[in-house]
This record gives sequence, C-alpha cells and structure tokens, in this order.
Amino acid sequence: MSSPPVIGLLTDFHTRDWYVAAMKAVILSRCPSAHLIDITHDIPPQDIVSGAFVLAAAVPWFPRGSVVVAVVDPGVGSERALLAAEQDGRFLIGPDNGLLALSLARPFHASPRTFRRRARGARIVRLVPSRVWLAQRSHTFHGRDILAPVAAELARGGALSALGRPAPRIQPLTLPAVRRRGRSGLGQIVYVDTFGNLITNLPGSWLRHRRATLVCRRRVARVVEAYHQGRLGELIALVGSLGLVELAVRDGSAASRMGASRGDGVILTAST
Amino acid sequence: MSSPPVIGLLTDFHTRDWYVAAMKAVILSRCPSAHLIDITHDIPPQDIVSGAFVLAAAVPWFPRGSVVVAVVDPGVGSERALLAAEQDGRFLIGPDNGLLALSLARPFHASPRTFRRRARGARIVRLVPSRVWLAQRSHTFHGRDILAPVAAELARGGALSALGRPAPRIQPLTLPAVRRRGRSGLGQIVYVDTFGNLITNLPGSWLRHRRATLVCRRRVARVVEAYHQGRLGELIALVGSLGLVELAVRDGSAASRMGASRGDGVILTAST
Amino acid sequence: MSSPPVIGLLTDFHTRDWYVAAMKAVILSRCPSAHLIDITHDIPPQDIVSGAFVLAAAVPWFPRGSVVVAVVDPGVGSERALLAAEQDGRFLIGPDNGLLALSLARPFHASPRTFRRRARGARIVRLVPSRVWLAQRSHTFHGRDILAPVAAELARGGALSALGRPAPRIQPLTLPAVRRRGRSGLGQIVYVDTFGNLITNLPGSWLRHRRATLVCRRRVARVVEAYHQGRLGELIALVGSLGLVELAVRDGSAASRMGASRGDGVILTAST
Repeated sequence: MSSPPVIGLLTDFHTRDWYVAAMKAVILSRCPSAHLIDITHDIPPQDIVSGAFVLAAAVPWFPRGSVVVAVVDPGVGSERALLAAEQDGRFLIGPDNGLLALSLARPFHASPRTFRRRARGARIVRLVPSRVWLAQRSHTFHGRDILAPVAAELARGGALSALGRPAPRIQPLTLPAVRRRGRSGLGQIVYVDTFGNLITNLPGSWLRHRRATLVCRRRVARVVEAYHQGRLGELIALVGSLGLVELAVRDGSAASRMGASRGDGVILTAST
Repeated sequence: MSSPPVIGLLTDFHTRDWYVAAMKAVILSRCPSAHLIDITHDIPPQDIVSGAFVLAAAVPWFPRGSVVVAVVDPGVGSERALLAAEQDGRFLIGPDNGLLALSLARPFHASPRTFRRRARGARIVRLVPSRVWLAQRSHTFHGRDILAPVAAELARGGALSALGRPAPRIQPLTLPAVRRRGRSGLGQIVYVDTFGNLITNLPGSWLRHRRATLVCRRRVARVVEAYHQGRLGELIALVGSLGLVELAVRDGSAASRMGASRGDGVILTAST
Repeated sequence: MSSPPVIGLLTDFHTRDWYVAAMKAVILSRCPSAHLIDITHDIPPQDIVSGAFVLAAAVPWFPRGSVVVAVVDPGVGSERALLAAEQDGRFLIGPDNGLLALSLARPFHASPRTFRRRARGARIVRLVPSRVWLAQRSHTFHGRDILAPVAAELARGGALSALGRPAPRIQPLTLPAVRRRGRSGLGQIVYVDTFGNLITNLPGSWLRHRRATLVCRRRVARVVEAYHQGRLGELIALVGSLGLVELAVRDGSAASRMGASRGDGVILTAST
C-alpha cells in the first residue's frame, strides 16, 4: 500500500472562524486518506511577502508527493489567475500573486534570473474551471471552492495537466538581493519570527567561512554558533535553521531589543 | 475499504493548555483511524451564540458520516443534558444549551417554526451513562470524559440510539429574524470575523436579485461582487461565502472602521 | 492491521512561523501513517516549568504506543543531552532540562524521592547520533533535525535501546511540595490556565474527604463541585479535571479577579 498523501495548508485566515475547517472538510471529502499539516494560518492579512517566505521555509521538508495549498489572496474574485505547480516531486497550489514564487525559486538567494530559470524547471498551470471545482462557487472564498478540491485531486494522483493550461510566466517574487561592497555584504532583515529573531537574506556560508562582524542599527552582533552561547541581553549573530544569517538575543527578542523590523539593513564585514 | 472517519472539534478551550489534546487523545485511543479537523478552539469563553454560528458555518462542508463535537459549556457539571444528533448523514455532539441548535436548523434563516420542523427531521438523543463514557469522570471536563468517547463511538459506527434516550425537544437558538418593511429589510450583524467583515442575517439572494442600498450605522455601503472591487477604505457590501450579505472594507477591517459589532442593525433597501 | 501510531507534539514555537510544520513534515516523511496531535505550541518561550506541567497533564490520555515529543529548549546547541524514554507503554522525547521529568514522575505530587523511584521505573536513554537523525543538522533546531526523526523511528516500532545509551539520571523537576501544618495544608498555585483558573498542587482528595476552607491572597473560596455552582463573581474552589484543587470564578477569570499568579500560596484548612 502506498503512503497516505500529505497536504499542507498556509493561509492568512487565522483560526478563530470556520474558514480553515471548511477547506479541510472539502479536502477530506474528496481525499479521505490525506494527512493534513497546518503550516500556519497566522500570516498577517494580505501580507503576500510573509506568506511567501514562510511557505518557502516549510515546503522543502514535505515528503515527495505532498501537496501544499497556500491562500493569501487579496485579489480573490478578480481576474488574477490561480496556479498549480509541480517541482521536485511536490505540488504547490495558490493564487498567482507571488505567494508561490519564492518556493519555486529556491534557494532563498535566487536572483530574478535564477528565479526565471528555476520556474522554467517547474511544471506550472493556470487552473481552468472543471468538474473538480465545487459546483457552487462564491466570489470570496476560492480557497474552499477551488483550491481545496484541486489539492485533493492532486493528492489522489490526478494529472496536473488536466487541471489547467501551461503558465508561461508567473508573478515573480524574490528576496531583496544582497549587495557586495568590498569586504562587506549589505543585506536586509527579511523575516522576524515569533521569538523576535531577525532573519536576514545573508547566506549562512558567509559567516561560516570567515571571521566576520555583523552590524544592524549601529549595533554590533557577536558571532556564535547557537543561542545559548549569547550572554543574557547580548545581541548575537548565527546561522539559523534555514541556512540564513540571523540576529538574536538569548532568552529574549532581538526585534524588540533593537526596535528592528523587516526591511532594516544589515552589514556583514569580513575580518582580515 | 471504507474511508477513515472524520471528526471535527469546536470548543472555547483555546490551545494554550492541554484540554483539546486530552479530548483528541481519548478519541484516537478509541477510534485510531479517525482524521481530526479543528474547526476552532478560539470561541470566546462561554459565548454560545458565536460557537453556534461558527459550527453552523462549518458543518455543511463535512463529509457524510462525519462526527462533529462541540464544547462551549458554561453549565458543565449541572443538570443540563448532553446531546447527540444525526442529520443529513452527519453526527453532532454537545451540550443542550443552543450550541447545536443553529446547525440543526440550517439554513441560517430558520424561523423558530422552521427550526422546530428541521429539528424534528433530525434524530436527537440525550446521552445517558454507559460503558462508552470514561469510567472515571470529573465534574468539570465532560468534553474529555463523555463527549470525546461518544464521538469515537459514533465514528466507529456505533448506534446513536444506544447512546441515549430520544430528546423530544432541545434548547432552541435561531438567528434574529429579518424584518421586512416596505421595500426594505431590517437585519442585524450576526458575526464579526477575524478580518473585521460584518456578516449579517440578510440572505444573499436579496442582493443578487435587485439593485439595493445597504446602510449600517448611517453609512451607505456600495454593493460589489468581490472584495477587490472596493476602493481602499471604502465600505462595501457583498454576498459572502456563507450566502449571507456581509459588509467589508478592502484590505482593512469594517468592524474597526465602523465601530460596529454583533447586534448592530442593518437596512437593505431595494432600488426602484 | 495494527492501529496507526499517534504522535503528540508540545513546543514553545507558537504557530505563526514554519517551525512546527517542519517538524511534522519530517515526521510524516519518515512515518507516513502517524496521526499527529498538537498538545500546544503556545508554551511561553523557554518556560520549562509550564511546558513540563502541560505535558504531564496531557500524556496520560495518550494511547499506549504513542510517542510524545516536547521541545522547550533554551539550551539547544549546547552540551545538554536529548532524551528518549518509555514508561507505561508511551514514549517521551525531549531535552534533558526537566521538561520530561514531571511526566515521568506522575502523579503530580511526587516527592523528589518518588520521582527518582518512578524515573527508575522508566527506560530512559540519552540520544546518540545515528542514521536516524537528519544528515544535515543545524545548531538551532534540534526539534526538526533530531527529535522529529527519532519520534518517527519510535512510532514505526524502532527499538529505544538503539537510539542512545542508558541515562542513569536525568534533570529532575517536581512540583513544589505541599507542607502540612496541623489541620492545614500549605500549597501553591502551580498553573494558571486560559480561563484564569488557578490550579494548585493540593490533591483533590483533600477537598473530597473533609469539609474544608481554602484561602488565597486573604480571600476565602467556597468549596463546590462544579463551576456553575458559583455565583457570578464569587471565588470558588473545586477539584479540577487533573484531580488537583483549583480556584475559579464562574464565567470569569480567577487570575485577574485575584491578581494571582504561579507561585502564590494557598492554605487549605480542614473543618472540625
């Protein structure tokens, strides 16, 4: 017997209402053996950039054959397309507004050119109406009416090509590029996590292979390997679990300590 | 092989403690093949009306054969009855305090009379102690000690009639009725969702079939089909995904913009 | 066919980021038939005592053969050991920082001596690197890289002894002891739940077997059997669903009403 399929969900619906449950109920109605994993439903409303980042951080851990459906969709009901894609043996479903793009463009440091090449390596279709979609559809909840049944169909082994027409290009979204200036790299904070850790777009290899100094908002961070090596209250820099450089405060929040947020600049300078 | 059963859960327990997990662990101890769907655990403590609304919004999407257990139960440990019901091939379990009533009285616009007729169409029993219940029971957590094992029993195909005695009538709960006055309909806000959308008790068909004006707190909403058609900050009215008229602000919260909350009146007037 | 295995998860990761999903995806990659139960992910960051309490409250409800993995791990990346344990047919996995200790020392009132004896009754190993661990491991996320694959391995029936070396002793953690003074017992608030109920370390049997008076912050609580027996706003004391004495306010929060928090003293005096 083959393994039961895994379906991941990421939305900005939060969990106070019935929206997520309606999607799950539709999925299990169509694909009763699926195992569901909530990635998160707490993406800030309509924050496509956060959604794309969290999605790209989670997707590589899903087993081959998984389906991940993502809904951060301010354009629901408009002419924006809905996409289904297959890459590296996993399926991604969501609106064509950049939300899926960062996952398709992995690794995180894709330049726009790498992005286009990676996306070419994926099979991507624009969904078209079919018997798979719910017969009665609202203008406001395509997650339930279209994306959930499409996820179930792919999880059951349905053909991607039967769900839509090839999408020659999709709405791009890449992380801001790191700029090199002499022995320094100029990056940015690209995500602030629940603990207040400040995740940057600087590749972890830059910290690994050289002695380095990291500066953010005029404060210097000490480079360590793990959180516990920081002194209480001290700003530290380390390679986080995504392989990106992050700033942290042991047993505290670097974000509130520094008053820092997404988009703030970070300078990493190699020691001589 | 038949499909694994689906069991939905709705509570006001939130997810910070172990209460929900204890219920799930009891369910999977008794029915290991069940697939669990959290509807929500964030119902405001003891808010039966919110719980009933969210439950009624979610239940119709569950597959036939599903079991949904709901716990918003300020009277736990008192003489209030516990119910199990079957309607349209789905099972509902919870306290007899109105929580299940709105789901049994679907559609949302049931009058008290429709409610009684619909409820008559359901098979409803008052639970009585049996070997199904946990042997050791607390006075404060019937969700774990009674409702979870009853849910597992029904999911395994146990007979409803073996779990209790027929309940000739149950605690009713219906949405406030819409009043018609000439060409106008006077409704209310019946639910405010996480996005701050104001869901009313006005049937969506009233917006669909005529040009209309919607007024709430002396502000006029423009009727549109989908959120994206609103201008930034503009109050719009549309048919939401439950088939009810809702008020919204694109990329914002109608609730905070309007200072509106559950119970506020709404007037829909047909254009000539 | 044997039942699909149940794997429980408890962390302080919250659910806004991808951390929990990455653990679940690793688990289902290795053990696709597992049914996952979230105990909670909302333990206050690095609060080992809260994590240990919630874990100990949830674990007894899990079916035999379950695996429960717990991550509240301020020492991640340090020399602190990681543990896997088997007791009463259930497996527990987590850092050796006290987090698992309270579960291994059940019942809640274990003295340090009882704790050592109970722990001796468990099979406990310190995890050692093996092919089970992810090949590429970060210094900051052992939940994903080590504990998740170990959980999957145990859920698949892998041998505990193959995962590590016997741990002769582990980091202890017990609830503060209740002191007896004449006809009184001096206890403490050991957990405050979402509803604001104040759970103490006093055994419920002390309320059951005698008429008693309970005093906390100079206020006297009336002893009842269930929440609904309280009058609105009245401080009541009852035996909660863990079998411990708790203080509550009907339809309200005893914590905010009393300004009470973990560690506050409670005096239970038997009536003559």
